[in-house]
Amino acid sequence: MTDLLQMYQTIRKRSTDLCLPLAPEDFNIQLADHTSPPKWHLAHTTWFFEEMILKKYLDGYQEFDEEFSFLFNSYYNHLGDRTDRSHRGTSRPLLEQVLGYRHYVDELMETLLQVELETEVRKHIIIGLNHEQQHQELLLTDLKYTWWHNATFPVYDTNSNFLTEKNTESGWLKMHEGIYQIGHADSEKFSFDNEHGAHRVYLNDYSISKSLVTNGEYLEFMEAGGYKDFRYWLDEGWSWVNAHGINSPLYWIKKEGEWMQYTQGGLKKVHLDNILSHISFYEANAFASWRGMRLPTEFEWEAAADQFSWGSRWEWTYSAYLPYPGFRIAEGALGEYNGKFMINQMVLRGASIVTAPGHSRKTYRNFFHPHYRWQYTSIRLAQ
Amino acid sequence: MTDLLQMYQTIRKRSTDLCLPLAPEDFNIQLADHTSPPKWHLAHTTWFFEEMILKKYLDGYQEFDEEFSFLFNSYYNHLGDRTDRSHRGTSRPLLEQVLGYRHYVDELMETLLQVELETEVRKHIIIGLNHEQQHQELLLTDLKYTWWHNATFPVYDTNSNFLTEKNTESGWLKMHEGIYQIGHADSEKFSFDNEHGAHRVYLNDYSISKSLVTNGEYLEFMEAGGYKDFRYWLDEGWSWVNAHGINSPLYWIKKEGEWMQYTQGGLKKVHLDNILSHISFYEANAFASWRGMRLPTEFEWEAAADQFSWGSRWEWTYSAYLPYPGFRIAEGALGEYNGKFMINQMVLRGASIVTAPGHSRKTYRNFFHPHYRWQYTSIRLAQ
Amino acid sequence: MTDLLQMYQTIRKRSTDLCLPLAPEDFNIQLADHTSPPKWHLAHTTWFFEEMILKKYLDGYQEFDEEFSFLFNSYYNHLGDRTDRSHRGTSRPLLEQVLGYRHYVDELMETLLQVELETEVRKHIIIGLNHEQQHQELLLTDLKYTWWHNATFPVYDTNSNFLTEKNTESGWLKMHEGIYQIGHADSEKFSFDNEHGAHRVYLNDYSISKSLVTNGEYLEFMEAGGYKDFRYWLDEGWSWVNAHGINSPLYWIKKEGEWMQYTQGGLKKVHLDNILSHISFYEANAFASWRGMRLPTEFEWEAAADQFSWGSRWEWTYSAYLPYPGFRIAEGALGEYNGKFMINQMVLRGASIVTAPGHSRKTYRNFFHPHYRWQYTSIRLAQ
Amino acid sequence: MTDLLQMYQTIRKRSTDLCLPLAPEDFNIQLADHTSPPKWHLAHTTWFFEEMILKKYLDGYQEFDEEFSFLFNSYYNHLGDRTDRSHRGTSRPLLEQVLGYRHYVDELMETLLQVELETEVRKHIIIGLNHEQQHQELLLTDLKYTWWHNATFPVYDTNSNFLTEKNTESGWLKMHEGIYQIGHADSEKFSFDNEHGAHRVYLNDYSISKSLVTNGEYLEFMEAGGYKDFRYWLDEGWSWVNAHGINSPLYWIKKEGEWMQYTQGGLKKVHLDNILSHISFYEANAFASWRGMRLPTEFEWEAAADQFSWGSRWEWTYSAYLPYPGFRIAEGALGEYNGKFMINQMVLRGASIVTAPGHSRKTYRNFFHPHYRWQYTSIRLAQ
Repeated sequence: MTDLLQMYQTIRKRSTDLCLPLAPEDFNIQLADHTSPPKWHLAHTTWFFEEMILKKYLDGYQEFDEEFSFLFNSYYNHLGDRTDRSHRGTSRPLLEQVLGYRHYVDELMETLLQVELETEVRKHIIIGLNHEQQHQELLLTDLKYTWWHNATFPVYDTNSNFLTEKNTESGWLKMHEGIYQIGHADSEKFSFDNEHGAHRVYLNDYSISKSLVTNGEYLEFMEAGGYKDFRYWLDEGWSWVNAHGINSPLYWIKKEGEWMQYTQGGLKKVHLDNILSHISFYEANAFASWRGMRLPTEFEWEAAADQFSWGSRWEWTYSAYLPYPGFRIAEGALGEYNGKFMINQMVLRGASIVTAPGHSRKTYRNFFHPHYRWQYTSIRLAQ
Repeated sequence: MTDLLQMYQTIRKRSTDLCLPLAPEDFNIQLADHTSPPKWHLAHTTWFFEEMILKKYLDGYQEFDEEFSFLFNSYYNHLGDRTDRSHRGTSRPLLEQVLGYRHYVDELMETLLQVELETEVRKHIIIGLNHEQQHQELLLTDLKYTWWHNATFPVYDTNSNFLTEKNTESGWLKMHEGIYQIGHADSEKFSFDNEHGAHRVYLNDYSISKSLVTNGEYLEFMEAGGYKDFRYWLDEGWSWVNAHGINSPLYWIKKEGEWMQYTQGGLKKVHLDNILSHISFYEANAFASWRGMRLPTEFEWEAAADQFSWGSRWEWTYSAYLPYPGFRIAEGALGEYNGKFMINQMVLRGASIVTAPGHSRKTYRNFFHPHYRWQYTSIRLAQ
Repeated sequence: MTDLLQMYQTIRKRSTDLCLPLAPEDFNIQLADHTSPPKWHLAHTTWFFEEMILKKYLDGYQEFDEEFSFLFNSYYNHLGDRTDRSHRGTSRPLLEQVLGYRHYVDELMETLLQVELETEVRKHIIIGLNHEQQHQELLLTDLKYTWWHNATFPVYDTNSNFLTEKNTESGWLKMHEGIYQIGHADSEKFSFDNEHGAHRVYLNDYSISKSLVTNGEYLEFMEAGGYKDFRYWLDEGWSWVNAHGINSPLYWIKKEGEWMQYTQGGLKKVHLDNILSHISFYEANAFASWRGMRLPTEFEWEAAADQFSWGSRWEWTYSAYLPYPGFRIAEGALGEYNGKFMINQMVLRGASIVTAPGHSRKTYRNFFHPHYRWQYTSIRLAQ
Repeated sequence: MTDLLQMYQTIRKRSTDLCLPLAPEDFNIQLADHTSPPKWHLAHTTWFFEEMILKKYLDGYQEFDEEFSFLFNSYYNHLGDRTDRSHRGTSRPLLEQVLGYRHYVDELMETLLQVELETEVRKHIIIGLNHEQQHQELLLTDLKYTWWHNATFPVYDTNSNFLTEKNTESGWLKMHEGIYQIGHADSEKFSFDNEHGAHRVYLNDYSISKSLVTNGEYLEFMEAGGYKDFRYWLDEGWSWVNAHGINSPLYWIKKEGEWMQYTQGGLKKVHLDNILSHISFYEANAFASWRGMRLPTEFEWEAAADQFSWGSRWEWTYSAYLPYPGFRIAEGALGEYNGKFMINQMVLRGASIVTAPGHSRKTYRNFFHPHYRWQYTSIRLAQ
């Protein structure tokens, strides 16, 4: 069995394993444009292999169902019309048809993977698997967001992801002015196109915290009136806070005078020592301002990343998501993967407790609009 | 077995029978504020009996689940907070819990119904059953609306409701000026509060059509440019047509040059002789203007109703939904049933092919906002 | 000098007289879609005479400026494109050009009016004058609305319209069941097409108040929590109250614990004995419900109108604005005058302190959407 | 007379001089949230001197009118409530009052400027004058935007700003990899806080065009279907193009088959050789993609700026508006000047034909959201 086949099977199986706690009715609910239902994630990741691999590289491939091309395309304009982002929550096709789709595509992918493949095909399959891992994280965060709006606060897992992580280090790392190497340079290992173009940046002296902000520290900000003092906020952040009545991290709720937070294990008490989660860039930046500090840039983060531990939360940086020098959009649909989102979004570095195993690296550039909070995000300070 | 018990069982069973063609995933999709998912209809109609009957009249009644009160209230402000109308599509509680809820309530209702009940209790149970019948019609029309937005055009029933009804009469009925009796006067038989207050109205000479408008007649209007000529439209209708790009009845779609319509049996050809369905008041009124005629008032309709056949389509009238003389809102939650909607809506008379059996009468006042089209609506002309 | 010429001159002059207190900058502000700036009113009323009279009946008429046709059309689709309702607040053409337009049109109208005119022309001129009187009232109410949003609360007139009117009668008028004549029957006197079609209606016994609701009575409703109790409100009224945080009539503001109201003379104390003004249909209806009464229908109002005094406030009725029996939309642009608004609006009867002199009659049907409050509206109870 | 006094008088006079072509009615129209009427600009720039200088540094200063503080604050949360951005178009205070306000403040400022002032005061006055120069540019661009929506296409100036600028250079400038100095370092000369923090950046080899894109080149893009091919667009740019039906630069209109553009001199023919103006970042970036090139970063622009001519158009860069290393928000209201806008905006470099004389320098960082087009913006390519 080839390594790639094994990798394919392991990653594909993880997607359906993540859905084991779900009933059929849980697979098709969409509550916001930016979240998708589990069934859609299962189908869309499969569609990727059908569209990008099987249709191109498997001679005589017979499409599973021509409507699925339309239904499970996400944003690849190259590949024709697509269903409206806000209409992904549909009852049909039924879950069993989607599972049939996965099975059909997997069998043929496994056939294809029996033989030695050209470098290009292998590369595209690996992109597909990394793509699936990204959707595994989204599947969990989207589900959490959906269930948060359900009055019954459903429990996904009785054992894990209760946001109990704590800092293991403290203090500040001092970094020296000079030229640093940024970006993914190892062409043997996979990385996304937005990390390519390893290049030099010039950094000034800076310090970066070895720990992430805790619930306790954030609560101090809240209790000091942080959400009510415009001085700490970017202008659009201040509008956002006021328009939506924001006064705590997402998933926090006060019950009988005590702060609780919704986790994958249901409502749990907020513990002060645990690492903060689910805040927007606006909140991260306001907190830093209140502390008289700032967020690091993505370059500062990457230059120092070997010297602190990371991986439990996505960390907001004060870097906009822009192309690296020499970045070029690839030809065809795969070119739509990253480049076209390079506007109005901020870079997050690190990874989170729900990131797929093996999917993290220090050059990884995650990105979201500054008001989003449904990912497992937190704050690392710099000065 | 009492008559009321039998009636209770028959009507309650029909609700779940209507859901037999559905898979669990079909029960929880909501695509618009004005439509609700099947699971919600099943639960809300049950909630009515729990809230209005069991809690009041069954000593020692134990609530099935206190959260259900919140989740399945529709608009009864008397009974506390309620879930947002646009958030009825939820995965939890699961269908099996809702079916458990129905079973629990039905058993206790049946116990209650074994004995002779006070008139008031009986009256409230009968309201609950009529309420359930209304939701049966909504369940079917809401599902049709939801599935229309599904690219696969799911089939609900392979045998019926393909909109094949034809007129059996033709010509005009001439009605004479004078005083007519309007409203429900028979206190032995059930009617809603909005029909009560039988009273006299003075009508002028008028003629009313014995037939409903057909697809063919409506197509003439379309082909004569009816949707593009402001002269036929009320000002707000004209804005609606232009804002939404309306150019045919709801559920019509042109495929390879031929008009098709989505029915409970899937996409079917539009037959010219069949009775038109799924048009808004604005369209009904524009069609009538184009023909140099008008819609009847609800009083003209009722005064003549014994002399033509009706029941396959709800018929838009040019009467606003207003209180009859002497109308009074009842005390308590039941008082919220009808009266508070008496603004900005138009009256429809008749019934439709998906109205529950035994639920129709000539004094029945249905009402919707003038732009809605997802009910089985049509046009009867007057002049 | 003909009577019609004199009438023309008197009414036209009143429009510009109403603008005497204004500076040029006051003529072009528009704050809401439903209000128009003074310059627009001055121009649009003139446009009416140019478009409907001079272009049709004055041989060799030379248009003042072809762009004015586009700019100052209001909603007459027959006469081509028109400027967006929300973009009437423009600096150009300048006021002096608009006054030039008035002067140009007036001179030619006066020439036309020197000679004996055909009945049809005379009729259309009289419509134009009544149209101008309607805009005179709107000019004042729109300006009040605009200035209310100005932090400086500008004063329009230091002498009048401070809302000091009081009731001169009290008690109830008992009206007997039977047939009543409704609508304008005197073809010698002017009336709008929506009043035509005099016809009979059958009314039940009812009582109607001889007085209008006062500020003091309304304050009792407010202090009894009327704005916070859903039981008194129509469902859409309740949504309106909550969406906009409504808790008092329009133009009321509490200063240092005392209710003040913005009038044409600036901010004035709310006096309890004065007649209430500036409430929506929703508020009128909620007040009536709270008092255990109701609003009269427009028919009940008209049948009794000779027996109470009216004219200081427009009085909301619980009648939707619908066509009278036999109503027909006239051919051409004048046909757009009234009929196409016959949906989603409620009828108001009476007149107000800012209605043009001589413009009132008991058959007059004014109409607005149920949430509007910028007219001088009030409440007469019925039961 | 001190230099600063002379500078004060010159700049202040220019603001009112720019308004000489206007009638009083032109001073108060606002058509969009992002544009302000001339009267507001005149008052707000004056308010700055009253609030930041006279109230602080002139003993016994008597406020001109306390309401003006509220009315003419723009976004300085430090200084209390402010009028809603979309409600700046008001008739009152009248223009003459605003001119009185300017006169009052100018007299006292001139008194203050007679004597030798502390460095801090002088610094704040210079900020106020630069602030006024920024508003002079906005006054002209806002007015152009407002008049563009006026069907009469008013002429502001019959002599200038017809967008006739042409490139005087051509070809590419090759820049070498290495460390470059960025930001304003000369503490003797004025610059805004967002330019401070001179620092080093590391740049790779790049080429930058010596000319700006012309109308002719842009028309090629349009005619090649550039607005209809998603491949050239950022995802949010593509949504923007489709949502608003964008198919040409702002102010372009096709008349009888020929492209015209609205200028300060009215509608003029689009000449192919003239430099393009009034495009969004999205369009700039799409054009660059279509040409297989890219926009420069703001650092690449600044490093090369001495070697090409600039100043006729603001040039979009592919740099987000972010803080320079060491950037700190100043204490108090002046701290709100720049830093709080550092999110979701893109940097523009250069200046335009309507930038105030003496207000340009190569370190200047202008910034707007990527969809705005009402400034005089254009494209310089890089590769």
